[in-house]
Amino acid sequence: MHRSANDQYLDILQYIVEYLGMPDRTDKRQQAALLQGMLDLLILRTLEVGPLHGWGISKSIRQMSHHVLNINQGSLYPALYRLEAAGLIEGKWDTTSEGRDAKFYSLTRAGRKQLKNENDYWLLFSKAVNDVLNGT
Amino acid sequence: MHRSANDQYLDILQYIVEYLGMPDRTDKRQQAALLQGMLDLLILRTLEVGPLHGWGISKSIRQMSHHVLNINQGSLYPALYRLEAAGLIEGKWDTTSEGRDAKFYSLTRAGRKQLKNENDYWLLFSKAVNDVLNGT
Repeated sequence: MHRSANDQYLDILQYIVEYLGMPDRTDKRQQAALLQGMLDLLILRTLEVGPLHGWGISKSIRQMSHHVLNINQGSLYPALYRLEAAGLIEGKWDTTSEGRDAKFYSLTRAGRKQLKNENDYWLLFSKAVNDVLNGT
Repeated sequence: MHRSANDQYLDILQYIVEYLGMPDRTDKRQQAALLQGMLDLLILRTLEVGPLHGWGISKSIRQMSHHVLNINQGSLYPALYRLEAAGLIEGKWDTTSEGRDAKFYSLTRAGRKQLKNENDYWLLFSKAVNDVLNGT
């Protein structure tokens, strides 16, 4: 049987969703994972450019998003702790340009892979929302 | 003083954010609002086409998103109840094409306005995330 381009597209989507192990983040139990994934994505992305301390990460997200996204400290530091415990980032104490001690975080190899996974998931999710908004 | 196009752009963003009354949905306390807003957006959008019952709404979201977004019943029905209580949608009992009684929901005038607000917020939010992902 001939398979249309649309069928192949759906197969690719299904593959991505299964690969990421996140079949249904719109399920209520998965909503926390959706938000956590978005936050992880933003943090990992800023570290792709180079090591940053906590304050530098939130500043970078704020600047790159043209002051739309402001990650508050109460969300950022638990996320950094969680990402470090999961081996996705690693922290090293160093001195800032202002002479203060701070923990500088950098991406691990597993972190780079997770960044790609979360990036793929965001593209899938945001495209799906846009499809609903723009569809007929 | 000359103001750049970028300054004007930031002003417009600021205006939208203040207008919507959602200055910082990345704040932990606002995360529930972010998810609720996304779900409301999807539901209101499907009703823009015409009245639907609950099952029709989730089917429509699933189809329009090419089977990526599956709203489970435990999220959908509380959302419909909340949207109706807020006067954004109104339900009328009618008979489905299969001869069953079902409550058909349609957009109110306030619902159309809210759809536009949530749509604007989604565009602002998703653009900001994409700016972080694609920025340097």
